[in-house]
Amino acid sequence: MIKLYYAPHTCSLASHIALEETGAEYSTVRIDFGKEEQRSPEYLAVNPKGRVPAMVTDRGILTETPAMLAFIAQSFPRAQLAPLADPFAFAQVQAFNSYLCSTVHVAHAHRMRGRRWADDAAAIAEMKRKVPESVAACFDLVEREMLKGPWVMGEAYTVCDPYLFTLAQWLEGDGVDPKRFPKVADHRARMAERPAARNAIAQELGSSP
Amino acid sequence: MIKLYYAPHTCSLASHIALEETGAEYSTVRIDFGKEEQRSPEYLAVNPKGRVPAMVTDRGILTETPAMLAFIAQSFPRAQLAPLADPFAFAQVQAFNSYLCSTVHVAHAHRMRGRRWADDAAAIAEMKRKVPESVAACFDLVEREMLKGPWVMGEAYTVCDPYLFTLAQWLEGDGVDPKRFPKVADHRARMAERPAARNAIAQELGSSP
Repeated sequence: MIKLYYAPHTCSLASHIALEETGAEYSTVRIDFGKEEQRSPEYLAVNPKGRVPAMVTDRGILTETPAMLAFIAQSFPRAQLAPLADPFAFAQVQAFNSYLCSTVHVAHAHRMRGRRWADDAAAIAEMKRKVPESVAACFDLVEREMLKGPWVMGEAYTVCDPYLFTLAQWLEGDGVDPKRFPKVADHRARMAERPAARNAIAQELGSSP
Repeated sequence: MIKLYYAPHTCSLASHIALEETGAEYSTVRIDFGKEEQRSPEYLAVNPKGRVPAMVTDRGILTETPAMLAFIAQSFPRAQLAPLADPFAFAQVQAFNSYLCSTVHVAHAHRMRGRRWADDAAAIAEMKRKVPESVAACFDLVEREMLKGPWVMGEAYTVCDPYLFTLAQWLEGDGVDPKRFPKVADHRARMAERPAARNAIAQELGSSP
């Protein structure tokens, strides 16, 4: 049985929703960032990167959201979470998720995690100042070029959808008005109605201390 | 036939080497960053992100190195560039490549591409100053926790190998002494001997203006 390590309000929500979509049994472990549990020796033994998500499977541990999402899709093919039989369509799913992890999430991370890339307080403040602009530029590209609708890849719901939904949750906090991106906003509303998203969110926020 | 858009000294080398490994016919188009060709209307029609790599296939255009590498592996299964029949092992390949794109490449990018995340010159200089430290921290994790040897995934060569090789080319430029990471340095030397790497590099640098 899969065990997911997560923290509320982080990108682990994407994998959490995807697991809910499969209908499979799984368990979760909450990592408390307030207590720096992601840096504890116990958690570093699970994920030496000291970040969430991480997923324990019967074969070993996996990290990195795009890899975990593809693994969930491949492990539970009946849930039809990715076009597994079509390498090009599968690559399009992966390209979208790769853009989210390497560009969109990174733009967002400059608001709260500037210390990864600078030590000077003024530089960290300057990074934070630019986040609304850099995050909006990412979502502008998603809106114009990537999100086909009603789901990211068009008619078929895929693992791209919970991932985009997860990152779109951060828009307000990043100082970006979601109304600027009507297709993304519609997608977010559509996702919020899915039982898998509601269940995952209820579980994460319901177990808040 | 696949057409690869690349620029020398960028992460497009990973896909270039992977294509060479397949033995398939493909063509390349060089994008001249000196002339800002990546921002030309012609190239933005291929890749609206204005970055390399991009790959034209008979089904359409793909971007994002991890997605392109997985697509190359799946499209040319006889080259055995990924454990395609084993979802967990495939996910491990993807997790490694996802770490490279979202963390290692991003750390490196703060040296030359700081304007993505800040406008102030002092902040951009401060980001640049920290690159040796943040890039070294990434390669420390690769050395300690990820690179199994002789190849990234162990005995089997995969698409992780050209990607790691490509990013490891940047160590000296990033102010990191490659000798600090003996396994990575060995891997780089081993990769440099492969005909696919030699051919791709010769093609990219031989066509320099």
